[in-house]
Amino acid sequence: MTPQSEVVHFGEDDPLILDSGERLAPYTIAYQTYGGLNDDKSNVVLVCHALTGDQHVANEHPITGKPGWWTRMVGPGKPVDTDRYHVICANVIGGCMGSTGPGSTNSKTGKPYGLDFPVITIADMVRAQARLLDHLEIPDLFCVIGGSMGGMQVLQWAANHKDRVFTAIPIACSARHTSQNIAFHEVGRQAVMADPDWCGGRYLEKGKNPHKGLAVARMAAHITYLSDEALQHKFGRNLQNREAVTFGFDADFQVESYLRHQGVTFVERFDANSYLYLTRAMDYFDLAADYNGTLADAFRDTKTRYCLVSFSSDWLFPTEESRDIVQALNAVAANVSFVEIISEKGHDAFLLEEPELDRTITGFLGAAALKRGLEAAPDGGAAG
Amino acid sequence: MTPQSEVVHFGEDDPLILDSGERLAPYTIAYQTYGGLNDDKSNVVLVCHALTGDQHVANEHPITGKPGWWTRMVGPGKPVDTDRYHVICANVIGGCMGSTGPGSTNSKTGKPYGLDFPVITIADMVRAQARLLDHLEIPDLFCVIGGSMGGMQVLQWAANHKDRVFTAIPIACSARHTSQNIAFHEVGRQAVMADPDWCGGRYLEKGKNPHKGLAVARMAAHITYLSDEALQHKFGRNLQNREAVTFGFDADFQVESYLRHQGVTFVERFDANSYLYLTRAMDYFDLAADYNGTLADAFRDTKTRYCLVSFSSDWLFPTEESRDIVQALNAVAANVSFVEIISEKGHDAFLLEEPELDRTITGFLGAAALKRGLEAAPDGGAAG
Repeated sequence: MTPQSEVVHFGEDDPLILDSGERLAPYTIAYQTYGGLNDDKSNVVLVCHALTGDQHVANEHPITGKPGWWTRMVGPGKPVDTDRYHVICANVIGGCMGSTGPGSTNSKTGKPYGLDFPVITIADMVRAQARLLDHLEIPDLFCVIGGSMGGMQVLQWAANHKDRVFTAIPIACSARHTSQNIAFHEVGRQAVMADPDWCGGRYLEKGKNPHKGLAVARMAAHITYLSDEALQHKFGRNLQNREAVTFGFDADFQVESYLRHQGVTFVERFDANSYLYLTRAMDYFDLAADYNGTLADAFRDTKTRYCLVSFSSDWLFPTEESRDIVQALNAVAANVSFVEIISEKGHDAFLLEEPELDRTITGFLGAAALKRGLEAAPDGGAAG
Repeated sequence: MTPQSEVVHFGEDDPLILDSGERLAPYTIAYQTYGGLNDDKSNVVLVCHALTGDQHVANEHPITGKPGWWTRMVGPGKPVDTDRYHVICANVIGGCMGSTGPGSTNSKTGKPYGLDFPVITIADMVRAQARLLDHLEIPDLFCVIGGSMGGMQVLQWAANHKDRVFTAIPIACSARHTSQNIAFHEVGRQAVMADPDWCGGRYLEKGKNPHKGLAVARMAAHITYLSDEALQHKFGRNLQNREAVTFGFDADFQVESYLRHQGVTFVERFDANSYLYLTRAMDYFDLAADYNGTLADAFRDTKTRYCLVSFSSDWLFPTEESRDIVQALNAVAANVSFVEIISEKGHDAFLLEEPELDRTITGFLGAAALKRGLEAAPDGGAAG
């Protein structure tokens, strides 16, 4: 049996007040933990997941049966060493893996929310996580880490909870979603909404599933997670189990077959409306806008230690975006490291085998742990 | 009244033999001409259109009522000067503006072809154009010019008809479609095919139109025609006629509104199955493959004068692709000019106001016309 996530329920009288002004209640947060909490609760690492990720960071996924999405980063002896740190990851609000989202039952109607679910933001995701930590009586975080949409949450955490974040590691992200990225998300949403089985968002009630539209959305997005070079090296113009093109519309090319597979497997584990809501949250993300347009003001008086990471071939969140954040942090004399990792793996590099990323995180966290007075891992762990 | 295209019909006994081995008959080629043919027929410029273009280069479009798609390039006193040159542009075979394509009636069934239309290639498009020129008794071309899929046709012309092409101007193209480009096309095709109104390709018979799927395909493709910088400068995160985000799924951002408009207007003038066929033709394009994998062999013994143009911000057909062609041409000591134009307009730059492109074409064609012994334009035209 794969582990089921732990959940915390917040009642009707304990709403989450959202950026939109809406009050979400009741709501549930589903989360996973790894590694032991130390006595003074000073060793907590919060992992924030990306758009299509979830809380199953380092355990077998309950639907796909595959390993967790960041087993290369989180685990015993890994850069986020569970022999040393207590790791928490919560499914974001609006998600579809146990935390309340558009697929959850609306207590007012007894039916799934669908589009009656309030539009949420990155700040709302962070609010929900903060409520979870309050509930768990965890005062602050040794580290908050995440890539892509997870990195946006890291930045929001660091900006909104300066006294609760000792170190922040935003990876392959930006402080505001660009026009091109909004455009790609809009294509994905239109693909979902164009599917008649979407039923104006009420597909769960009607026993339908807009899986074709969601698969198209995933395929389009997936291309943006890779790089031109990576696709060329991995697939090039190689044909899929055939000697010559078939003069038809089958998946003649390996890259077509690969993309179709990405679409098909995604819809088995992801809710279409959650996809709409989470892409919208990313589009709305503009951290400087919360601070009168000056990004540096988001970080003023910060004591958090930052480590930013970008990847040279990431064209969705190019290095320039990370540099803008570094400049804002420098403007307020924050403690910041920045590494651009030369990689051809594109945006998805943060999820893939990338030894330089491991070394960066191991080194940064090890130094921060010393500063924080965290003991080395028992039994000769990574820092032992 | 907007001009209707002239057409040439090729009968049942005069098939077009396709790369697939299929015989297409009967078939029709629809075309437009501009400017006068000189006495020795030495002033013909063949314009090859791109994926979503057509033969209406420099006249009002019969469906949209808008100006032709290349009025900035083709016309009296323009770089392709119709006071001097006789310009021909034919709708490609497989298209939907009068040349035979999947929307045409299959003479064997009396119904629209749909997916019974044979899959065509860039070489097949060129074959059809050559048949048109034969019919018009035009022995050779002073110039063949085009961008994107049009550029692919230019390369195919130059390779397959070395004695018929005096100058070749392939713009913003490549000698083979990359993995990433195939991937984007596959997303578009899947978007069309996911629309239940596509009806397995038989939508015309059933009185349906997969306009939602085709609009999604167009939206995804349109992003690839622009550049990140251009989108950021043109739209940024600007909101569409509102002061603040609406916390909903309307087009809050200008870029969303713009993209939706691109999708909606495209489906009014384009056939969904043609979109499948023409994207497939581009995917299949790999000029070197026809020459045992050596691109230079495609151009061996060429006497054609080449002028290649790429745009610095074109990430769909990056400059590197043009450079590969230039290297192949250099390897066979061809007469070749190459210009990378610094532009933030992305792939679509060849269709947009780009004075450096105009100067490049004007200069190259003017010099070639002298070499060819073409007289200057009458009445003080551009070269007068």
